Amino acid sequence: MIIIMKPGASAQAIEQVANIVRSKGLQVHLSKGDEVTIVGVVGDKTKLRGANLELSEGVDKIVQVTESYKLVNKKFHPEDSVIPVKNTTIGPGTFTVMAGPCAIESHDQLLQCAEAVKKAGASILRGGAFKPRTSPYSFQGLEEEGLRYMKEAGEATGLATICEVTSLRALSMAAKYVDMLQIGARNMQNFELLKEVGRSGLPVMLKRGLAATIDEWLNAAEYIISEGNPNIVLCERGIRTYETATRNTLDLSAVPVIRSKSHLPIIVDPSHATGVRAYVEPLSKAAAAVGADGLMIEVHPCPSCALSDGPQSLTFEQFQQMMEHLKPYSDLAGRKLG
Amino acid sequence: MIIIMKPGASAQAIEQVANIVRSKGLQVHLSKGDEVTIVGVVGDKTKLRGANLELSEGVDKIVQVTESYKLVNKKFHPEDSVIPVKNTTIGPGTFTVMAGPCAIESHDQLLQCAEAVKKAGASILRGGAFKPRTSPYSFQGLEEEGLRYMKEAGEATGLATICEVTSLRALSMAAKYVDMLQIGARNMQNFELLKEVGRSGLPVMLKRGLAATIDEWLNAAEYIISEGNPNIVLCERGIRTYETATRNTLDLSAVPVIRSKSHLPIIVDPSHATGVRAYVEPLSKAAAAVGADGLMIEVHPCPSCALSDGPQSLTFEQFQQMMEHLKPYSDLAGRKLG
Amino acid sequence: MIIIMKPGASAQAIEQVANIVRSKGLQVHLSKGDEVTIVGVVGDKTKLRGANLELSEGVDKIVQVTESYKLVNKKFHPEDSVIPVKNTTIGPGTFTVMAGPCAIESHDQLLQCAEAVKKAGASILRGGAFKPRTSPYSFQGLEEEGLRYMKEAGEATGLATICEVTSLRALSMAAKYVDMLQIGARNMQNFELLKEVGRSGLPVMLKRGLAATIDEWLNAAEYIISEGNPNIVLCERGIRTYETATRNTLDLSAVPVIRSKSHLPIIVDPSHATGVRAYVEPLSKAAAAVGADGLMIEVHPCPSCALSDGPQSLTFEQFQQMMEHLKPYSDLAGRKLG
Amino acid sequence: MIIIMKPGASAQAIEQVANIVRSKGLQVHLSKGDEVTIVGVVGDKTKLRGANLELSEGVDKIVQVTESYKLVNKKFHPEDSVIPVKNTTIGPGTFTVMAGPCAIESHDQLLQCAEAVKKAGASILRGGAFKPRTSPYSFQGLEEEGLRYMKEAGEATGLATICEVTSLRALSMAAKYVDMLQIGARNMQNFELLKEVGRSGLPVMLKRGLAATIDEWLNAAEYIISEGNPNIVLCERGIRTYETATRNTLDLSAVPVIRSKSHLPIIVDPSHATGVRAYVEPLSKAAAAVGADGLMIEVHPCPSCALSDGPQSLTFEQFQQMMEHLKPYSDLAGRKLG
Repeated sequence: MIIIMKPGASAQAIEQVANIVRSKGLQVHLSKGDEVTIVGVVGDKTKLRGANLELSEGVDKIVQVTESYKLVNKKFHPEDSVIPVKNTTIGPGTFTVMAGPCAIESHDQLLQCAEAVKKAGASILRGGAFKPRTSPYSFQGLEEEGLRYMKEAGEATGLATICEVTSLRALSMAAKYVDMLQIGARNMQNFELLKEVGRSGLPVMLKRGLAATIDEWLNAAEYIISEGNPNIVLCERGIRTYETATRNTLDLSAVPVIRSKSHLPIIVDPSHATGVRAYVEPLSKAAAAVGADGLMIEVHPCPSCALSDGPQSLTFEQFQQMMEHLKPYSDLAGRKLG
Repeated sequence: MIIIMKPGASAQAIEQVANIVRSKGLQVHLSKGDEVTIVGVVGDKTKLRGANLELSEGVDKIVQVTESYKLVNKKFHPEDSVIPVKNTTIGPGTFTVMAGPCAIESHDQLLQCAEAVKKAGASILRGGAFKPRTSPYSFQGLEEEGLRYMKEAGEATGLATICEVTSLRALSMAAKYVDMLQIGARNMQNFELLKEVGRSGLPVMLKRGLAATIDEWLNAAEYIISEGNPNIVLCERGIRTYETATRNTLDLSAVPVIRSKSHLPIIVDPSHATGVRAYVEPLSKAAAAVGADGLMIEVHPCPSCALSDGPQSLTFEQFQQMMEHLKPYSDLAGRKLG
Repeated sequence: MIIIMKPGASAQAIEQVANIVRSKGLQVHLSKGDEVTIVGVVGDKTKLRGANLELSEGVDKIVQVTESYKLVNKKFHPEDSVIPVKNTTIGPGTFTVMAGPCAIESHDQLLQCAEAVKKAGASILRGGAFKPRTSPYSFQGLEEEGLRYMKEAGEATGLATICEVTSLRALSMAAKYVDMLQIGARNMQNFELLKEVGRSGLPVMLKRGLAATIDEWLNAAEYIISEGNPNIVLCERGIRTYETATRNTLDLSAVPVIRSKSHLPIIVDPSHATGVRAYVEPLSKAAAAVGADGLMIEVHPCPSCALSDGPQSLTFEQFQQMMEHLKPYSDLAGRKLG
Repeated sequence: MIIIMKPGASAQAIEQVANIVRSKGLQVHLSKGDEVTIVGVVGDKTKLRGANLELSEGVDKIVQVTESYKLVNKKFHPEDSVIPVKNTTIGPGTFTVMAGPCAIESHDQLLQCAEAVKKAGASILRGGAFKPRTSPYSFQGLEEEGLRYMKEAGEATGLATICEVTSLRALSMAAKYVDMLQIGARNMQNFELLKEVGRSGLPVMLKRGLAATIDEWLNAAEYIISEGNPNIVLCERGIRTYETATRNTLDLSAVPVIRSKSHLPIIVDPSHATGVRAYVEPLSKAAAAVGADGLMIEVHPCPSCALSDGPQSLTFEQFQQMMEHLKPYSDLAGRKLG
């Protein structure tokens, strides 16, 4: 931690700051420049919690030198993590494809999807049983009934299954039926839910919040891992910007950024990011090329009948074709598609 | 709802769209232009849920004509609402000041704050017992112990009390101790929490999400009111932009915008928005001038000792002074300060 | 300047960085922490230009301690500037109102506007002769003809006049006719234009760029002042965000931020910021309350006939009324309205 | 164009709006719904310029149905354009790589770069002679001297050359020396410069503005093409968001969006977008995979000695290697690298 003093801060003010730091058992390195003096702090900064040095007389600003997330930080865990999910893994060597409908609508709809995405080569079935919707008057999901269909579809096809949980109640229900949990963008900082997911023992996919920085996202993952659950996969799903041609702006730079800061795998969701079916395939190829660990894709037997997010869903034929077009890209990236 | 067809959409495609609309029991108004044809839809649009007209052949885009929120919409409830909280009200005629520490730290800290803000003229005591923090290693709040202090401080001073709830567990606890609930920015779209707050019967302040549009915010309020609770106050607390000189960008335009779209009161939180103590007073005056219904302000007996958000907290003297400087502005706005 | 080394940077790497700094004639202060080492640099940092220390082995990041703008910086010029324009001044003690049509459309339109805004109490007449428009097919301005009308209207009413210049050609024309130049948001970083305006000797109003940080804005002002022209007024006109209820998001926090960083006056343009007539008056009052030095307001004899930006323009009656409502706010702020 | 009336707009108000439209020689289609009435306008909307229907009594909002750009619009020119530059072309079938230093610093530096990027397979040499810099105290470019070096390097290697022009003066100079002009992000809406570039007859690369929407970008291109110059290449270079881990957020979705809206080629600049050397290669591969027409890459003989943007520049070896890694991706995309 570095404390930058204002130009013209008095010797007394500087001494006072230094004394506060020392009184907490930390060491001080003073650096007097022509314009400003800098106070370097050496030692465990958590001891300064509550000291609020920003408010001391003569202090201009404080610069943090180290990240607040530790267990998900690559600096302290340099090898990339591999996350086991049922009979598959997410991480180096694999380009995992999670596919299925935005919302589970019926037993048949889900089973048809499961069979189609399995045939096309996906390894994880997605489907929403709890739908967080902007308006209270939109379809909110089948809840436990949907989870049962999920379990049946997983058993029938051998696919692993993933489902979003939006509350503790949803979590305790879903934990009985699915192989992997998903925290959606709107709940990225629902800290109680993060902690409980951390205690669940199940692998979890953590979507980036709508306007979350990469640092906030990694801190959210730290909530999960600090409760004992290291099986976390990150998911970039677009951030909110002023551009309206796509629903969100897919931030593919986040993939190499996460790669440099964390050992967790990261997958990409081009369906939610763009909201437009025609953009899903090109951005999926780009995700493979940029080094992502996989994709989450929306597929629906009849997109024009879907109760949620039809415009971005692929038909079975489109998904099958996309997987074929994708394969040479995952091959190039040295990863097994599936 | 208006369906805009692509240039060159075939007569067949237009007829098909019109037929889908008619098949749901709605009327169609066709408007053929030089370049494009437009299909107007007349009747209850909820009947089209699931029709996914965007996906029909020849459709370019769909424009919604009416808002999805109804009960909080000024169009259907033109008089401004007045929200009762203990022995005070929020709304026309009053410029309500909620003040207190970011986090409740001890019985004495809170009681001192309560007495100081009461003396300076505030009518509602704020204080956090559940703190949503970016890092799991930051102070997370005193929880029920803090709520007890809140109740005692309210009884000792006669102030109404408000506390943020971050989960169903926090809500069921807080409902026993405080007069008003707060939903924070991170939980603006925690829909299960919104619904439960809607069932609680307590007045609630709903903060705008970090990157929420005004429409999403009003839809979140619709979740609360549609469960039977009309006692909702909105709170503008800054939105996330690229600017880093302030923690967030306080969107004071939201005040007249909300005034034109909804009957709910709206107050302003300049402390969280800016993160800088020196900017709180000028922006508080601006909030009064722009027509807001009140303020939420952070006050601390010793900002440099605060466990949370010290840099933006005012001392008792600063708060007292600000209230004096504020009075002529609330007078001008025709509102009683307090 | 502070150089933060990576955890585990070798002693050799640290020594090499220190040597580069010393080789430029600067001093080094080393601060070795538990996790990282920090290299403080003392002396004139412009000597390090081109050294690109970020690229040296073992360097994590570089933190700038001092701002790159000097002449507009309050640290080196603590008293607020007063900018003379014709027979009036902008700065402390005055709440300057610039008003007039978005675009100059005819001699009569402009003269009527001039008389109306003069009567209502404005002191500067605005009007665009060169209109930067998103589409090449929109009205682009009357150019020199419009400037002549401007000069005539200024002489007829005694008002000072201001006009936007969008190019060197426009600048050399406008300098012959108007009292003050305006650099629009789109040209905030048109550096050649900034330099030439700096050489013109005329007072200039510099609007904030659509997505400019406050630091970039002050650096743009530094371009003007470094050519010898200290007569600069800043103008906050809204920044681009994801919110669509207003055309831009008016950042009123920028007023106290600029006040703390620079000695230049700052005025507010609520007309362009919101794009909605009904929001202009409340935000104008807020601008007075937050401590701005004035306003720029669009007024038109017949907004529904305007060639540009009609929806946000006030009629003469509305402007007259707004000025009356505004007066108590500028009085409260201790400023003379006009 | 569609005019949406407010709920409860009087029959008189609706009739008045319809009359205004008719009085301009356009047709009206009325559509009366349960809540609102919609007025469809048929015919050439430019006739309504200045009518400002938003301001008529009872009007809620106006929705534009057709884009304001015409000549760059794919709807009216479905085949993708191929842009000739010296002895090469940009567009379908080619994955063009423009490479070179951010700023031209000397004859030798540029010639070395030219030889290195030629050897590695690039076909166009980039290099800045006019540098738009945030601070007036940063290096501003060699101007005409730099342009001469550019011409020499082009002749020596056979590479085509491209250089940014920041003003009319720079343009008239550059036109004598280089094969292609570049309009930078800060000048995307410098309309006078756009028009002059449109008259120059030279091929031009138009970078997206820092906070420009895709529609604004295409309208800026329309300024160039409407002056008679169809040889335009778009360049996505990142947009400004709240995220700070990269300098800007590279919006790769813009590639398929542009592909669906315009016939112009689009290339990607990952160097400026990220500001970090390590992210350039993964994002270059992603650009090829998403369907871009090429790349602009910064290369420098000694990044740690560069006068501008060293941290994002590749060394010759890194660039050579990147080109080798890129080749299978451009092959997969069915394009010739170069």
